Amino acid sequence: MINKLVEKIKQTHAPIVVGLDPMLNYIPEHIQKAAFAECGETLEGAAEAIWQYNKGIVDATYDLIPAVKPQIAMYEQFGIEGLKAFKKTVDYCKSKDLVVIGDIKRGDIGSTSAAYAVGHLGSVQVGSKSYVPFDEDFVTVNPYLGSDGVKPFIEVCKENKKGLFILVKTSNPSSGEFQDQLIDGRPLYELVGEKVAEWGQDHMGDDYSYIGAVVGATYPEMGKVLRKVMPKSFILVPGYGAQGGKGADLVHFFNEDGLGAIVNSSRGIIAAYKQEKYASIGAENYADAARQAVLDMIADIDGALQNR
Amino acid sequence: MINKLVEKIKQTHAPIVVGLDPMLNYIPEHIQKAAFAECGETLEGAAEAIWQYNKGIVDATYDLIPAVKPQIAMYEQFGIEGLKAFKKTVDYCKSKDLVVIGDIKRGDIGSTSAAYAVGHLGSVQVGSKSYVPFDEDFVTVNPYLGSDGVKPFIEVCKENKKGLFILVKTSNPSSGEFQDQLIDGRPLYELVGEKVAEWGQDHMGDDYSYIGAVVGATYPEMGKVLRKVMPKSFILVPGYGAQGGKGADLVHFFNEDGLGAIVNSSRGIIAAYKQEKYASIGAENYADAARQAVLDMIADIDGALQNR
Repeated sequence: MINKLVEKIKQTHAPIVVGLDPMLNYIPEHIQKAAFAECGETLEGAAEAIWQYNKGIVDATYDLIPAVKPQIAMYEQFGIEGLKAFKKTVDYCKSKDLVVIGDIKRGDIGSTSAAYAVGHLGSVQVGSKSYVPFDEDFVTVNPYLGSDGVKPFIEVCKENKKGLFILVKTSNPSSGEFQDQLIDGRPLYELVGEKVAEWGQDHMGDDYSYIGAVVGATYPEMGKVLRKVMPKSFILVPGYGAQGGKGADLVHFFNEDGLGAIVNSSRGIIAAYKQEKYASIGAENYADAARQAVLDMIADIDGALQNR
Repeated sequence: MINKLVEKIKQTHAPIVVGLDPMLNYIPEHIQKAAFAECGETLEGAAEAIWQYNKGIVDATYDLIPAVKPQIAMYEQFGIEGLKAFKKTVDYCKSKDLVVIGDIKRGDIGSTSAAYAVGHLGSVQVGSKSYVPFDEDFVTVNPYLGSDGVKPFIEVCKENKKGLFILVKTSNPSSGEFQDQLIDGRPLYELVGEKVAEWGQDHMGDDYSYIGAVVGATYPEMGKVLRKVMPKSFILVPGYGAQGGKGADLVHFFNEDGLGAIVNSSRGIIAAYKQEKYASIGAENYADAARQAVLDMIADIDGALQNR
């Protein structure tokens, strides 16, 4: 799957991923109205609105981008119905040949991590039959429990040619509270980064490992260091745009080959129609606004990579 | 909710929680057969088997115990159908007046943690209506992202009188890989424990805070230290029984008042019928075996507390 991701990035010249994190207040009124007319102001109605909204964005952008990243929390908050919309979104994106990164940030002790891995990246056995429950291509994993919380995910990736992005340095303001603590003079996130590199070494695609890392766009200097600590790991970079990161800040997340990172934007694309810059496109045409925002993001990042 | 938990522990003299972590291979054949006869060897069939199995255990033990802890991964691995069984289990346990600790180990950046919190502990708004999606009483939270990943959970707890158990020192063999790293001579888990105490101080029930911690039974010496670091936090202690912890090892997780900790056992209770000790009870009567295992666990822990 890492090979497919690399291939698609080369084809599209777009090392970016669209974060499908549909808050209800991002969803244009006409979509909400139609969904509520059909299903009422219910969890099912919310799920239908999310699904229609996502479908519009995917249809308008899938030819420009290699990957999407649905954030499962935004679906899980609507319970079972929300999770159905998550599954429907994953399946639809895969039918459009997009690489799907499930932003699930799971992580637990061994047998429990194995259950998450099977549910999201593998197949589960029921009697003599086997089923593929959620079927993302990559998922994000929290490393706090150490190797035996991560390795069951790696095993399932190996069997199913899937991949991981492990949280190393997150994009949020208080990420430093624990992640930046110094251990023998070096921050915890570097230690986690070293582990990611170690796990990744044994699990290589053609040029890159299928064990990647998450490093926030909001911490470019740390990204520069971590790039060197994990030379063969793809870095998933959240925090572009709405959270503050800019194209020029991001060049050091990439290797000299122009690869090795994939930058996420969620709100900046899916709710682009709410920005002054795209307001003239109008809420009815939110998907066109998303497409324009994708084009602008590609130009920003590709431009920065060309100029470095 | 912390007051209710304390009250129920006092009533039952049982500072224990039954982990409802139904692996399919724990479920007696007669239940699997009946479920597959009804629904086929499908995800729905697996979910039905899980539900019937859980119901049997809850019916046989609810009068003895204050709380249950369903591990969501064991349901999520069966996709949407599995998550329906999770929800059904939560609801049924609440109807039996049990305190429900959702072992979900979520944690993300602010707005995303807020979505998880709303989905599991609060209510979500859809147009003019509001819904309660999963409705656990407590959930477990991963602290790797720092304060702004945890605080949205605390806010929702405050509004809804719910509670948290934050991962401090987990029970698994490799938990020390990051959690034990020394920062100015003190392990990371102590630093996390201090933060839990700090968050907890401002969010008190009558005697204990509704912000608790997870500390594995497998690390009793660390439990002793952490007990003092977080005097007002309840400690959820996994790893009893199957993972290796024993009653006598656990006394230091408790305060002098005999409170302050709640010890989880999963496999040791729900699959007790598979142990030599309870084998004579038989797989058909797995729920009676679970009841006996609960009684033995209470005697072990209560005995250890009386003898200290």
